[in-house]
Amino acid sequence: MTPPSSSRFGLSPGTLVYVGPEVAHDTTLTLVEYNEQYYEHRSLKHLKDCQISGDKPYISWLDVDGIHEPLVIETVGKLHNIHPLVLEDIMNTKQKPKIEFYGDSYVFVTLKMFYWDEKEGQIDAEHTSFVLGANYLISFQEKRTGDIFTPVLERIKASVGKTRRNGADYLLFSLIDLIVDNYLEILEKVSEELEELEGKILAGKHKDPIGQLYNLKRQLTLMRKHVWPLRDMLSQGLRENSKLISKSVFPYFRDVHDHVTNAIDSIDSNRELLTGLIDIHYSTLSSRMNSVMKTLTIYSAVFMPLTFIVGIYGMNFDNMPELRHPDGYFYTLGGMLVLAMGLLVYFKRRGWM
Amino acid sequence: MTPPSSSRFGLSPGTLVYVGPEVAHDTTLTLVEYNEQYYEHRSLKHLKDCQISGDKPYISWLDVDGIHEPLVIETVGKLHNIHPLVLEDIMNTKQKPKIEFYGDSYVFVTLKMFYWDEKEGQIDAEHTSFVLGANYLISFQEKRTGDIFTPVLERIKASVGKTRRNGADYLLFSLIDLIVDNYLEILEKVSEELEELEGKILAGKHKDPIGQLYNLKRQLTLMRKHVWPLRDMLSQGLRENSKLISKSVFPYFRDVHDHVTNAIDSIDSNRELLTGLIDIHYSTLSSRMNSVMKTLTIYSAVFMPLTFIVGIYGMNFDNMPELRHPDGYFYTLGGMLVLAMGLLVYFKRRGWM
Amino acid sequence: MTPPSSSRFGLSPGTLVYVGPEVAHDTTLTLVEYNEQYYEHRSLKHLKDCQISGDKPYISWLDVDGIHEPLVIETVGKLHNIHPLVLEDIMNTKQKPKIEFYGDSYVFVTLKMFYWDEKEGQIDAEHTSFVLGANYLISFQEKRTGDIFTPVLERIKASVGKTRRNGADYLLFSLIDLIVDNYLEILEKVSEELEELEGKILAGKHKDPIGQLYNLKRQLTLMRKHVWPLRDMLSQGLRENSKLISKSVFPYFRDVHDHVTNAIDSIDSNRELLTGLIDIHYSTLSSRMNSVMKTLTIYSAVFMPLTFIVGIYGMNFDNMPELRHPDGYFYTLGGMLVLAMGLLVYFKRRGWM
Amino acid sequence: MTPPSSSRFGLSPGTLVYVGPEVAHDTTLTLVEYNEQYYEHRSLKHLKDCQISGDKPYISWLDVDGIHEPLVIETVGKLHNIHPLVLEDIMNTKQKPKIEFYGDSYVFVTLKMFYWDEKEGQIDAEHTSFVLGANYLISFQEKRTGDIFTPVLERIKASVGKTRRNGADYLLFSLIDLIVDNYLEILEKVSEELEELEGKILAGKHKDPIGQLYNLKRQLTLMRKHVWPLRDMLSQGLRENSKLISKSVFPYFRDVHDHVTNAIDSIDSNRELLTGLIDIHYSTLSSRMNSVMKTLTIYSAVFMPLTFIVGIYGMNFDNMPELRHPDGYFYTLGGMLVLAMGLLVYFKRRGWM
Amino acid sequence: MTPPSSSRFGLSPGTLVYVGPEVAHDTTLTLVEYNEQYYEHRSLKHLKDCQISGDKPYISWLDVDGIHEPLVIETVGKLHNIHPLVLEDIMNTKQKPKIEFYGDSYVFVTLKMFYWDEKEGQIDAEHTSFVLGANYLISFQEKRTGDIFTPVLERIKASVGKTRRNGADYLLFSLIDLIVDNYLEILEKVSEELEELEGKILAGKHKDPIGQLYNLKRQLTLMRKHVWPLRDMLSQGLRENSKLISKSVFPYFRDVHDHVTNAIDSIDSNRELLTGLIDIHYSTLSSRMNSVMKTLTIYSAVFMPLTFIVGIYGMNFDNMPELRHPDGYFYTLGGMLVLAMGLLVYFKRRGWM
Repeated sequence: MTPPSSSRFGLSPGTLVYVGPEVAHDTTLTLVEYNEQYYEHRSLKHLKDCQISGDKPYISWLDVDGIHEPLVIETVGKLHNIHPLVLEDIMNTKQKPKIEFYGDSYVFVTLKMFYWDEKEGQIDAEHTSFVLGANYLISFQEKRTGDIFTPVLERIKASVGKTRRNGADYLLFSLIDLIVDNYLEILEKVSEELEELEGKILAGKHKDPIGQLYNLKRQLTLMRKHVWPLRDMLSQGLRENSKLISKSVFPYFRDVHDHVTNAIDSIDSNRELLTGLIDIHYSTLSSRMNSVMKTLTIYSAVFMPLTFIVGIYGMNFDNMPELRHPDGYFYTLGGMLVLAMGLLVYFKRRGWM
Repeated sequence: MTPPSSSRFGLSPGTLVYVGPEVAHDTTLTLVEYNEQYYEHRSLKHLKDCQISGDKPYISWLDVDGIHEPLVIETVGKLHNIHPLVLEDIMNTKQKPKIEFYGDSYVFVTLKMFYWDEKEGQIDAEHTSFVLGANYLISFQEKRTGDIFTPVLERIKASVGKTRRNGADYLLFSLIDLIVDNYLEILEKVSEELEELEGKILAGKHKDPIGQLYNLKRQLTLMRKHVWPLRDMLSQGLRENSKLISKSVFPYFRDVHDHVTNAIDSIDSNRELLTGLIDIHYSTLSSRMNSVMKTLTIYSAVFMPLTFIVGIYGMNFDNMPELRHPDGYFYTLGGMLVLAMGLLVYFKRRGWM
Repeated sequence: MTPPSSSRFGLSPGTLVYVGPEVAHDTTLTLVEYNEQYYEHRSLKHLKDCQISGDKPYISWLDVDGIHEPLVIETVGKLHNIHPLVLEDIMNTKQKPKIEFYGDSYVFVTLKMFYWDEKEGQIDAEHTSFVLGANYLISFQEKRTGDIFTPVLERIKASVGKTRRNGADYLLFSLIDLIVDNYLEILEKVSEELEELEGKILAGKHKDPIGQLYNLKRQLTLMRKHVWPLRDMLSQGLRENSKLISKSVFPYFRDVHDHVTNAIDSIDSNRELLTGLIDIHYSTLSSRMNSVMKTLTIYSAVFMPLTFIVGIYGMNFDNMPELRHPDGYFYTLGGMLVLAMGLLVYFKRRGWM
Repeated sequence: MTPPSSSRFGLSPGTLVYVGPEVAHDTTLTLVEYNEQYYEHRSLKHLKDCQISGDKPYISWLDVDGIHEPLVIETVGKLHNIHPLVLEDIMNTKQKPKIEFYGDSYVFVTLKMFYWDEKEGQIDAEHTSFVLGANYLISFQEKRTGDIFTPVLERIKASVGKTRRNGADYLLFSLIDLIVDNYLEILEKVSEELEELEGKILAGKHKDPIGQLYNLKRQLTLMRKHVWPLRDMLSQGLRENSKLISKSVFPYFRDVHDHVTNAIDSIDSNRELLTGLIDIHYSTLSSRMNSVMKTLTIYSAVFMPLTFIVGIYGMNFDNMPELRHPDGYFYTLGGMLVLAMGLLVYFKRRGWM
Repeated sequence: MTPPSSSRFGLSPGTLVYVGPEVAHDTTLTLVEYNEQYYEHRSLKHLKDCQISGDKPYISWLDVDGIHEPLVIETVGKLHNIHPLVLEDIMNTKQKPKIEFYGDSYVFVTLKMFYWDEKEGQIDAEHTSFVLGANYLISFQEKRTGDIFTPVLERIKASVGKTRRNGADYLLFSLIDLIVDNYLEILEKVSEELEELEGKILAGKHKDPIGQLYNLKRQLTLMRKHVWPLRDMLSQGLRENSKLISKSVFPYFRDVHDHVTNAIDSIDSNRELLTGLIDIHYSTLSSRMNSVMKTLTIYSAVFMPLTFIVGIYGMNFDNMPELRHPDGYFYTLGGMLVLAMGLLVYFKRRGWM
């Protein structure tokens, strides 16, 4: 998550400014038109070609890949009569998921796609928006790191699944469903990483997992922040009686709602597991400290008296009868051995060894 | 809880995929038909036999044991006009408990059964679903580790209890009641295990109980996740005025609601107890560390001065008058004894011994 | 709180099973009849005598002391047309407080009485239930460790207070009021015990108060669990417009509601105090550890250099000029004294002594 | 907060018992009568004089200073037809803030006044109640440690402010406003004390601030407990359409509501600050422990090898060539110096010095 | 945040008293008048000039810069018929954000502006209020540290943006939008500071970051306290059907609502990050302590036995055969070397080195 390259402060509201990370490539526009009989897929070269009319006898899906060029967004917006504040939200990568109904003309939906960045071990969020009109859908994606919409595109092409038989609302559902299913995929990966970490920590093999654990926790918090509002968004979408979303798609939206709930649950379980691992790590640290301290204490307790005794017989007093005794040395060695043994037995009994 | 063997990503919604742990055996289908006078119990060999008609003068209960074969679920679903998304939920072992009313045709209920796995010291969840129709009930169970429906089956057979006199809604209640009562059984076992652990920890006999405590905590968290939504599910079941659930069964459902509340309470008490035990464990660790450090300090404080003194008289200066004194050695020994005694008395007074 | 001697698993709902701790004595039945002019108090010998008719010109109060004999509860229940599930709740010592209205025939109330067990330092809960009919009240108590209903009984007998002038609903209120006032008594005792503990901990006299503190915390948690639902219960009792509870008793019920709120507040304050004490205990432990470590370090820092110096002059080199100096010994002793003093002054300045 | 001298257990509800700390003086009764033209202020000697009639053309304010004499409260109550349970609440110093509407006859309000006891460093709560009638107000105060009502009294006397022009409801508001403003004063004092403590803790000058910090936390918790319900109380007062509180006073009550919210905010900030200070204290303890341990380790690490070396040359073997070397002693001294230096440089590099 | 220089205690409500930090300069009054064609900007010298009439064909915006002079506020208030309690809130720098509708005459809005004080590393809050009338807006600002309203002023002047075409409600929105956008700016700075701190802590370079971390936490808490109520304020503003806020401005207010939600999210993420950093710091402390203790223990464990051995051969017994052996010294040295090596290998294997 790179910090924003520019800020919106002091601008007139509705001014289009891209605030996400810098992007090096151009925006691509793709138009898919289909109904039960017909299917066409075109890359658009000119901005003016992208106007869709809702009167045609087929569903039109315009996919805008890239939201960093204000001119593109503005043109697409003007051609379809989209409110400037909606365009602002499409470009504002910090916008939280929401749904907004603009009467019977269109519905605006924005949410996040996630990618698991293996290298950095972190989650990449991609700002995604949809404008659902009478007979068309416009989708806006942030970058181009692998298009997760491909399976739906191929289902349409191959004419499998129900997408070809249903309207633009079903297409919207299919794409949201894809995004949400992808959340569960990523959470599965996080779970796996956590289980690996857990194994290492319980075996005491990971010296300092705190940084890694906190990174994962942060990723999950970030994800939760963007997944949580999806529930309200979907409920709201079902509550409003918009003509654009037909009753027959309702069960499908309820289904996505369920999946979002599962994702939140999974996030929460993983967070709880993380907290548990942090505690276990500290417990391990404490136990080990205890064990180090015991070792030190036992060494000291055994060798301090012995060193004291040999010190005594190293004194240079003229009159020290023991020194003169022929077997004094051996008696002393024996005595020290007995003392050391006694101390070790004592510590064993106290449970320190 | 084994990780899912496959994932749903990219599939058309309503596609039936089993995501739970691998299962080695086939699905078994059992049909029980009964009314106050009549009782029959059959194992079905062919999928086509399993169609139930709600017009018959008796209650039909179809028990589908095994939800891993898409073909079976799909056939059962088609024969009874069940919505594909419901079938998806029946097979989706990650689905959370919920109730759904499909008009007057049927009610869909899904929840979890739990088993206490003694060997692993963990809770096994089994995905269970019910489809309640006009005069019939279809139950779906995940695996076959001991059928907990047996008591109800035997009550029906033996014609004891109210099941024989009541409708399919009462049968549904009886089965849910059984599942919920089983939660309380398992929680009783967890409580016992906790009390045993508590005894060991308080006696300081358990060296590293953190792993075990966190495992139990996780089990309880998992259980809570699946028990908590049951309350809403039951309330919702009572609120909706479905013809399929008669008013006479309401007090019984309210009763299960009470039991679910008891189960949640018990989970929460156990979790609080666990947190307490973790704290007690740390406190014990700290106390023991303190005791180790005190021992070390007393040893050092007593022997360091003594060793220093014997060091003095081990020096080789030509002119050291004490060394020449005939009783110097004995005076020195006496002095050291007095010093050691004094130090020990001092530490006793400070409460370190 | 002894574990239940038996469980309800697999039983038909409404089956009466006692799940509380074992009881060695029989159930006693007492019948009190009174109005403003009349008062009678009888022990019933036969179960069949306990039928109360609501038509009589006086209030009848049947007190059933003992809920462990299914036969007794069943008979009392049948004689007064009580629903089997209510009887189940009367015997289920794990049932949480609740109120249930069975039309105009009767109101069912269940809650917990508490006793403070001085010996074990824990709270004993007693399951108590009331069935309030048109002109009568039936009370069910778990055991017989001192009847806390005595004050109300004596007020009725002595004709003081408003009980004699009012209906069965006022009697119910009086008994609940008594139970709730008793909660406050017990909390007073817990507070006193806590203050005593606090004194000891702050004075550093209590070596390991963690076990005791957690026991108290558990007792308070348990109590909270059973007191918290009382608020809802009372509010619900006021909301429902039952004929059995007259408007004139409402202010009294609101008063009990206030007392319950006070009890919950007191529980929460005590719990917070407990958490504070646990923290203070750990702080004391840490401080003491710090002080132990400082002592050890000062000893080592002073004696290690000294012992090193005397070690130097204990070496046996042929050519060690200092040893030959006539006052070398005394200079060395003096030097060491100065060094030791210097080190002590240094540690004093660093604030370690 | 002294423990209650007596308890209410077993008493008939509505029985008047004083449960607060013992009081040594008598109750004083003051009557203030005023309208825009008229003002009179009298101390009442006889209980019977205290009856107020709401028919007079001026506002009557009866201030009862002392709530420990049941006879006084009872008489005042009977003269103005106050419900026995209200009188019970007036005397019950443990009663939480609340408002109660008794039809159009009177409104009962109870809340706490606070005093900051400098000597004990704790908050003293005083139980205060108001009975607002058609044209009169009766106030009840617990003790007599400085009457905080004085500013309002003087405003009435001096005819400044709006009190003289407005009704008894405005008088009630003025007194509550005074009490709430006083909360903010006390919180200011707590803030100052906290800032002083913070300074000491951050400078490491306060050896054991835990006791003091927990005392302050307890005071704030206590205060929160009594301030929190004020919000609901005020909202409720505005919601009920009582004739006794005129619409023109509503903005003023909303204003007090704002101040209460500010007070709660201030309590919460202070509590958070306290928690922060406790953590900082522990952090300081840990750092210091670390520093002590490092000192010890460096001493040991430097002197242990040196002492070992001098020990070697203190051995009495017949054949030890070094001892015979004329400059052996000086070489050894030099070697040890180099070793010590090397070790110190090493520890410096590891960042331990 | 300096403590208030005076307090409100004992004052009649509606009395204007400034409670914020002392201010050294005078209040400045600026009047901006504009419509699509017309624009004028004047500094007002006399208080009486500041009366605005809502009947003019242009929007009037009166900016009062300074709220510490009761006379100014009172005069402005009287000239525009503003309620005394509103004036009190304008001057009360402790007032929390709120919106109040005074019928159709005016709307009162108060909130906080924030500045990031680089020097002290803390957030400065400035109390800001707005009175929105039929065709005019009066804004009140606390101090004069850089006027953040400048961008809006310049947009009006330059006739860019929609402000010139819209009413006073749009102007109010623009100013609130500016303030909220500024929150996000400041949070960006806090984030940056946190990331810098994180880097230092993870690298173990920051010795005692606790004070700094707690300061940041407090700043965020303070900010949250003032940002949180903005959400309710804005929702309330949209709910009330005031003539003064036209429907066409609603989408813009919803947009600010979104930004406020983003700000709260950002505050919460930063707080969570802070908590994480505190934990990481403690973990680092613990690890380092562990490493120090291990070093000490290894030193002791190696040198204590060696020193004991050389002590043995420093004893002065007459009969010690080893001392007489010609190679005894070398054997001993060799033996000690082997022992030391063995011990080091042992500690390496235990993972202590």
